[in-house]
Amino acid sequence: MKVRSRFSSALLSAMFVFTTVVSFNSAGASELKLSADEVAKASQIYFNICTGCHGTLRKGATGPNLLPKRTQELGTQGLEDIIWGGTPGGMPNWGEQGALTREEANLLARYLQEDVVAPPEISMGQIKMSWNLMVPVDKRPKAPQHKRNWLNYFGVVERDAGKVVVIDGDTKEIVSRVDSGYATHILRSSASGRYFLSIGRDGKVGMIDLWTEKPSLVAVAKPCAEARSVDSSKYKGYEDKLIIVGCYWPPHMVILDGQTLEPKKVVGTRGYTYDTMEYHPEPRVAAIVSSHYTPEWVCNIKETGYIWLVDYSDIENLKVTMIEGERYLHDGGWDKHHRYFMPAANMKDTMVVIDTKERKRVAKFEVGVKPHPGRGANFDDPKFGPVHSTVHIGEGLVSVWGTDPEKHKANAWKVVRKIELPAGGGCLFLKTHPNSKNLWVDFTLNVDLEPHQSLGVLDINNLEKPVEMIKITDNPKARVVHMEYNKDGTEVWVSVWAKEGEIVIFDDKTKKEKARIKGLVTPTGKFNVYNTMKDIY
Amino acid sequence: MKVRSRFSSALLSAMFVFTTVVSFNSAGASELKLSADEVAKASQIYFNICTGCHGTLRKGATGPNLLPKRTQELGTQGLEDIIWGGTPGGMPNWGEQGALTREEANLLARYLQEDVVAPPEISMGQIKMSWNLMVPVDKRPKAPQHKRNWLNYFGVVERDAGKVVVIDGDTKEIVSRVDSGYATHILRSSASGRYFLSIGRDGKVGMIDLWTEKPSLVAVAKPCAEARSVDSSKYKGYEDKLIIVGCYWPPHMVILDGQTLEPKKVVGTRGYTYDTMEYHPEPRVAAIVSSHYTPEWVCNIKETGYIWLVDYSDIENLKVTMIEGERYLHDGGWDKHHRYFMPAANMKDTMVVIDTKERKRVAKFEVGVKPHPGRGANFDDPKFGPVHSTVHIGEGLVSVWGTDPEKHKANAWKVVRKIELPAGGGCLFLKTHPNSKNLWVDFTLNVDLEPHQSLGVLDINNLEKPVEMIKITDNPKARVVHMEYNKDGTEVWVSVWAKEGEIVIFDDKTKKEKARIKGLVTPTGKFNVYNTMKDIY
Repeated sequence: MKVRSRFSSALLSAMFVFTTVVSFNSAGASELKLSADEVAKASQIYFNICTGCHGTLRKGATGPNLLPKRTQELGTQGLEDIIWGGTPGGMPNWGEQGALTREEANLLARYLQEDVVAPPEISMGQIKMSWNLMVPVDKRPKAPQHKRNWLNYFGVVERDAGKVVVIDGDTKEIVSRVDSGYATHILRSSASGRYFLSIGRDGKVGMIDLWTEKPSLVAVAKPCAEARSVDSSKYKGYEDKLIIVGCYWPPHMVILDGQTLEPKKVVGTRGYTYDTMEYHPEPRVAAIVSSHYTPEWVCNIKETGYIWLVDYSDIENLKVTMIEGERYLHDGGWDKHHRYFMPAANMKDTMVVIDTKERKRVAKFEVGVKPHPGRGANFDDPKFGPVHSTVHIGEGLVSVWGTDPEKHKANAWKVVRKIELPAGGGCLFLKTHPNSKNLWVDFTLNVDLEPHQSLGVLDINNLEKPVEMIKITDNPKARVVHMEYNKDGTEVWVSVWAKEGEIVIFDDKTKKEKARIKGLVTPTGKFNVYNTMKDIY
Repeated sequence: MKVRSRFSSALLSAMFVFTTVVSFNSAGASELKLSADEVAKASQIYFNICTGCHGTLRKGATGPNLLPKRTQELGTQGLEDIIWGGTPGGMPNWGEQGALTREEANLLARYLQEDVVAPPEISMGQIKMSWNLMVPVDKRPKAPQHKRNWLNYFGVVERDAGKVVVIDGDTKEIVSRVDSGYATHILRSSASGRYFLSIGRDGKVGMIDLWTEKPSLVAVAKPCAEARSVDSSKYKGYEDKLIIVGCYWPPHMVILDGQTLEPKKVVGTRGYTYDTMEYHPEPRVAAIVSSHYTPEWVCNIKETGYIWLVDYSDIENLKVTMIEGERYLHDGGWDKHHRYFMPAANMKDTMVVIDTKERKRVAKFEVGVKPHPGRGANFDDPKFGPVHSTVHIGEGLVSVWGTDPEKHKANAWKVVRKIELPAGGGCLFLKTHPNSKNLWVDFTLNVDLEPHQSLGVLDINNLEKPVEMIKITDNPKARVVHMEYNKDGTEVWVSVWAKEGEIVIFDDKTKKEKARIKGLVTPTGKFNVYNTMKDIY
């Protein structure tokens, strides 16, 4: 049922596609001249693979700036070589890995020497037009329509297919395959767990009802042209009331109704970097978490290095606390008590610690090269007490620091362990569970190909013990990525990211394979309802 | 003594002059073509007389937008006619009143058909370079160096001279004439009253120490290219600790040290309009007041229609409450208890009421056409209890509304009187004092010339009585503007705004002239130390 949207979804997609008008700069204009078709194609490629690290306005973030002054110095051939073969600094070898053809790499190299033109803004009027309430609240079931243990459902992102596969964690059956849209990035669970919220790289947010026999979308909206984050209101009394979407472009966050996705409020993030206090036209909203202590969302503002606490208790008189963090903020998670939020500033090799009770930063410290915690992993270290930990993209290391300033003050916000990973770095995620004594790490972006197919497992009771490597797949083109526990913490689910991908399920205690779910297209992140709603990691 | 600045003030002025690069639009480009000199001259004229109402980016505010689509339709002749002769809608007749020559009006008409190019941003690095601490704190006197009653000093802005004249309110002697810089807009008193803070339209803030024999600047900084507002931290425990400057361009506010003007923090205001939630690139900071209830400044964000409460108790973890108000916010003042702040949205003929204790909007109501309260006037209405009031630019009216929701609930935030002013509108200010029973109004922008030389006086005890008109000057080119009481509320000081201007002082009880202070160049606003520091009006 289509209640409010007055436009077809095709038209809406078209509305928000990046319309890039290129004006030519002086240097070598004629040789670089791109046709309108070429500009359209190049800007789509840029959006697909470049914008995450280099920014929509090409001012740089995790990667360096790609403004004409710099790109023209590198020249078409220099740029094409880098696009094709990558760099030791972390630039992927897009050509070599088959993501681009020679012609596409050349086109992109020429495109990057053009002036940057900002994509259009998006107003509330446009967001409202994109909103489609397929199933109004009064048409939804009042109780689950099935006997399944939906709190142990897993939502799996099929990235290239633009779908979310809902899997019954008890029976391992695929319950539903939901068309969530282009390049779905992650899922979050609503506070009650009833809804999966999907957010696409194209800025589309979807709401999937897990109480129906076959989970399906009940509402969608498109508050951004590009996005990475979504969360719901989790504080007592506000459960499932509101939702926030963090956009990459335009640089803003949008608050929506937690039952219908009706857009409520747009809040801009443009402002000044926390340190040099220079104006930045594109502060993107990276990871968002929902506070359990207060009616607030905690939002990483990547380019300016602020952590914003956005109070949703009164959005007409919106209170935002802007905490000075570090550049460029990316991901991060809670300590086990959900008081301290620890975002990673990956380009500064730094973790920031925010006390959401006192509403301020309490620490900032260096870890390894390019930390990438995802949500990180909490465990009780036999020697150092409660700790949190991260892996790194830039080196083969698990960094571990204390998180208990009351009972283990000497260790709090200090790196107490740097555990070497013999397979090297390029890690994206690590994971454990309160009921587990294992710490699982992936090697998805390792410089060598071989570790891509394996996981490492550390023994929390004996962290000095060599890391155990477990081979997950024989497919040489597959990359193993992202681990998630089931509700009880007895199974670990792992994605084999490939065109003919699969989920491999391990018994956590024995570390033996228990099941494989095949027939998945490029599965990446997967999210257990209970662990996601309760922030258990 | 020059402690920190590494650049001459001339160089600093040059640094922040609007450097407008004009790129030509398609329509009629050749005939409109301006030379670089013409662009420089036209953009300076635009800055001097247009930007206040039409905005730096010409998107419109109190006046309509002046973007090429609209201006090219009007054409050079049409624009020139309007610039020369004004409009009934409120556009001043700049040519007829002698502010522009025919050539300048024509130049401006052509300039306005060009594309808009945003002026440069200003970073903290640049602001720091502009900072000049002439007298460090330890070189300043520990007690007043004179026996004068400095709490009854008046600071008078000599607008065209770019000076602040400090006058002893007891003796009426000019104590000092301070070179505050180009087009000084207003003064505010620091919480202790010791310092006058001047803010220039050119964005320069100055700090004048009233404890020295001859008050003079002890520090200056230039946080903006254009500005209108400044205030200090007034909450208990924070007196004279911090200062805020509200900029028109760049759209930001800057927090500075309250003793030295050392720049501390830049906070951007770019964001979304409160109602349609469209991105606005130029939300300017209009009036600012300092809360007596909380460690917060209350800032009118003109274009987006928000009132921001900026908490200065912890500027590294800055808390901002963004209250939905109305467009376009301009000036406003406190109720007599300093709990409710009442800004005017003059283009919506609306007053907004903010409860700074509960941190939210409590009312919004229509008054007359284009309210312009300045700080407004509080008094006890014999019939309706405690009220606040405003005059209007657009009609000859004093609007009066209740401000006591506890003891006079029925009248609170409702217009209880609309008192007609027989001389008509074009009023900029009205003023009374707790010890007075008179309400003084000016007619500075009246459509007729004759009321410009007079003031109206209303009897608070008998508001039905006809308004008494008092002729202030015989100079037909002078405009009478802005009233201020002395500390005791026994005298009213009035500016005669002319090249050979003066201050006329009235005994408030008898309404008889008491003294004239002559030899002032274009005196406009004047600020009694005690009344300004205590927000008495």
